[in-house]
Amino acid sequence: MAQKPSIPKGTRDFGPAEMVGRNYIFNIVRSVFRKYGYQCIETPSMENLSTLLGKYGEEGDKLLFRIQNSGEKAALAPEKGLRYDLTVPFARFVVQHQNEIAFPFKRYQIQPVWRADRPQKGRYREFYQCDVDVIGSKSLLNELELVQMVDDVFGQMGIRVVIKLNNRKILAGLAEVSGQPDKLVDITVAIDKIDKIGLDAVKQELTEKGLTEQAIAVIEPVLTLSGTTAEKLARMRELLAASETGLKGLEEIGTLFSLIDGAGISQTVELDLSLARGLNYYTGAIFEVKALDFAIGSICGGGRYDDLTGIFGLPNTSGVGISFGADRIYDVLCGLDLFPKDAAAAATVLFTNMGEREVAYSVPVAAALRKAGFACEIYPDSARLKKQFEYADRKGIPYLAIVGDQEVAEGTVTLKNLATGEQRRVAKGDLAAALS
Amino acid sequence: MAQKPSIPKGTRDFGPAEMVGRNYIFNIVRSVFRKYGYQCIETPSMENLSTLLGKYGEEGDKLLFRIQNSGEKAALAPEKGLRYDLTVPFARFVVQHQNEIAFPFKRYQIQPVWRADRPQKGRYREFYQCDVDVIGSKSLLNELELVQMVDDVFGQMGIRVVIKLNNRKILAGLAEVSGQPDKLVDITVAIDKIDKIGLDAVKQELTEKGLTEQAIAVIEPVLTLSGTTAEKLARMRELLAASETGLKGLEEIGTLFSLIDGAGISQTVELDLSLARGLNYYTGAIFEVKALDFAIGSICGGGRYDDLTGIFGLPNTSGVGISFGADRIYDVLCGLDLFPKDAAAAATVLFTNMGEREVAYSVPVAAALRKAGFACEIYPDSARLKKQFEYADRKGIPYLAIVGDQEVAEGTVTLKNLATGEQRRVAKGDLAAALS
Repeated sequence: MAQKPSIPKGTRDFGPAEMVGRNYIFNIVRSVFRKYGYQCIETPSMENLSTLLGKYGEEGDKLLFRIQNSGEKAALAPEKGLRYDLTVPFARFVVQHQNEIAFPFKRYQIQPVWRADRPQKGRYREFYQCDVDVIGSKSLLNELELVQMVDDVFGQMGIRVVIKLNNRKILAGLAEVSGQPDKLVDITVAIDKIDKIGLDAVKQELTEKGLTEQAIAVIEPVLTLSGTTAEKLARMRELLAASETGLKGLEEIGTLFSLIDGAGISQTVELDLSLARGLNYYTGAIFEVKALDFAIGSICGGGRYDDLTGIFGLPNTSGVGISFGADRIYDVLCGLDLFPKDAAAAATVLFTNMGEREVAYSVPVAAALRKAGFACEIYPDSARLKKQFEYADRKGIPYLAIVGDQEVAEGTVTLKNLATGEQRRVAKGDLAAALS
Repeated sequence: MAQKPSIPKGTRDFGPAEMVGRNYIFNIVRSVFRKYGYQCIETPSMENLSTLLGKYGEEGDKLLFRIQNSGEKAALAPEKGLRYDLTVPFARFVVQHQNEIAFPFKRYQIQPVWRADRPQKGRYREFYQCDVDVIGSKSLLNELELVQMVDDVFGQMGIRVVIKLNNRKILAGLAEVSGQPDKLVDITVAIDKIDKIGLDAVKQELTEKGLTEQAIAVIEPVLTLSGTTAEKLARMRELLAASETGLKGLEEIGTLFSLIDGAGISQTVELDLSLARGLNYYTGAIFEVKALDFAIGSICGGGRYDDLTGIFGLPNTSGVGISFGADRIYDVLCGLDLFPKDAAAAATVLFTNMGEREVAYSVPVAAALRKAGFACEIYPDSARLKKQFEYADRKGIPYLAIVGDQEVAEGTVTLKNLATGEQRRVAKGDLAAALS
């Protein structure tokens, strides 16, 4: 007897129920992307290692899955790797196909990525990313559109969210006016901790990181900033008056907030000066989305990067984009019981199978029902009815079309609602109407 | 200056226009699968090599892409490989999850597969398969359903096809009555060539392959079979009278043909006794689909395999399935110009951008239009109008919503049909109605 088969650790099978949920997410995300004029592209699962190496830091290089060469080159060092994210392949795509692309290029991409991470709860070696980016335009309208799409996606799903906004230039400006621009990351981390550990502990941490007392004095007002977004921005304008970069960041985020106001979605958006994700490569706006009613990390995030394609030889091309985390969104929808109930049904009707004559009768009836838009099945074997009922139940099929001697003789079908137990005889031509 | 980046040979980027076509195919296939109660599953891109090795013959083993182990095991022999098809992972899935599955299990799976084949025109190292199978039922109703789905898919696409049917048991029976059952493959190949090379050449080939004169005499009537399907089957019943297997095959295919008649789709189906694809593992029905109006290989095919999951420890589980070839279907749709024209448009409307004030005006108008179900964009930058027009043209956007001083003052939009050049001023609240 063969051993029960298994799959590589960190990977997953998705059965029918999970796929219904996952496709629900992908379909909403996809339809929203399209509504804003974003176009789908797909890139190969494997990229040349020269495309991937050095793009994700030293740690990232280690986490690339390398593919053994085939044929005569099998013994040589691998030349190909599985893609690690969708951003670098997108940058490669844009440079490679720059002459075929209409800029600004608005693209979305929903494909798996692979990382040789140590598998653990919620962290997989293969997972989907849903990325949407626009490249070739510096306009803040693009940032607005991304915020609108986030609002639209989670609105459709019924997930209440907060969309946090920041701007890398503000953080850079703050480090600048503190006199220690090299401490940008430490300052940002400290701001991030203020709610958890309090002002004194944050100040102590900054001291330990080597910030001078003078620098800390400059930063302190930011740590205790309060009021409306407008008030915070006004206060920041005073604090960063000496930094051109900082003022530029404040101007950008101010413009973005007024665009968001104009679009009527300001209630879900908030300024968060501690937001620093992807600080290494973002140069302008930074986004992060959190679910309000479910404790989990961010479910969507992104930002602007001013020179994404420079690494591949196309400099000065600014892009901005966000990525939706399908796995976490799935967990939120499960946790809040927000998946639509009817989506799980594999079909609307199961025709019973009581033998050849009944099946011959059911085949054209089922075909007509499908033409009318209803998913339906005929149970393939003439098994015990109990077994056929159980099958319908396990597949979430809400109606049974029972076809026996009498129904065949009459030209009818007995339609049974499996939830209520109700059943009634319907002329075979009226079946679609009876189900509507 | 960096070298222009590239992708591994045998792989492809799919840009927006190609993805529109590909998604058109996947969406139709998927919607038909669902209409018949098939459920989606997905399996990991990488499988343990122990799952894959030995399943595709010696040649197949060589064509598996192997993934280098990560971390401490990097120097050891690879343990994982990229999936080579969707059938073996499906069998593995069924065995691994047998206790969670409602049998008969009707599943579809649309995912890429990888083969380290020598790349050439029309042959890629990464390509999608669209597989639909039912496992755990021997009923010929399943075969009928597959034929119905093929008819439905290509009917929706407007591709005229012939669905060829055969049964492995008939071929086995023929080899049996010829007295040389070991020559099954040679006999099948010979039957396949009759149209191309003629009776005498086929007989000569059979002689060269070591068939006796007596055996050839038994086979000859099959080579020259003519008449309707019913007539052919009747004649075959005489010829295979001495073979239990052969008669069983004829009975199966006879039943299937009468089910197909009952479903009203017999005009697209034909008996083809030379059909032998996948002869190694099919045990019953064999299917192949060809386009009538475009010269290309088969665009869909499959068959029944009586013991698919035995290799993984679950014996006696019969399955039947087919696979749609997305790449070839794409070529047929292109070649016959059957892709719907409007599908290529990235959006319905592009709002021009003449400056901040106009954009502030357009943002809520565009938002309302999206709510009404229209995909639209606002050009992000205040560029020359000519550039904005070109952008709409390149993205196939049929309407321009021109917003200048006057429109803002009036609360209107100038709607321009880019195909006809016609333009008219519309109240901003009437835009959705004007586009319907």
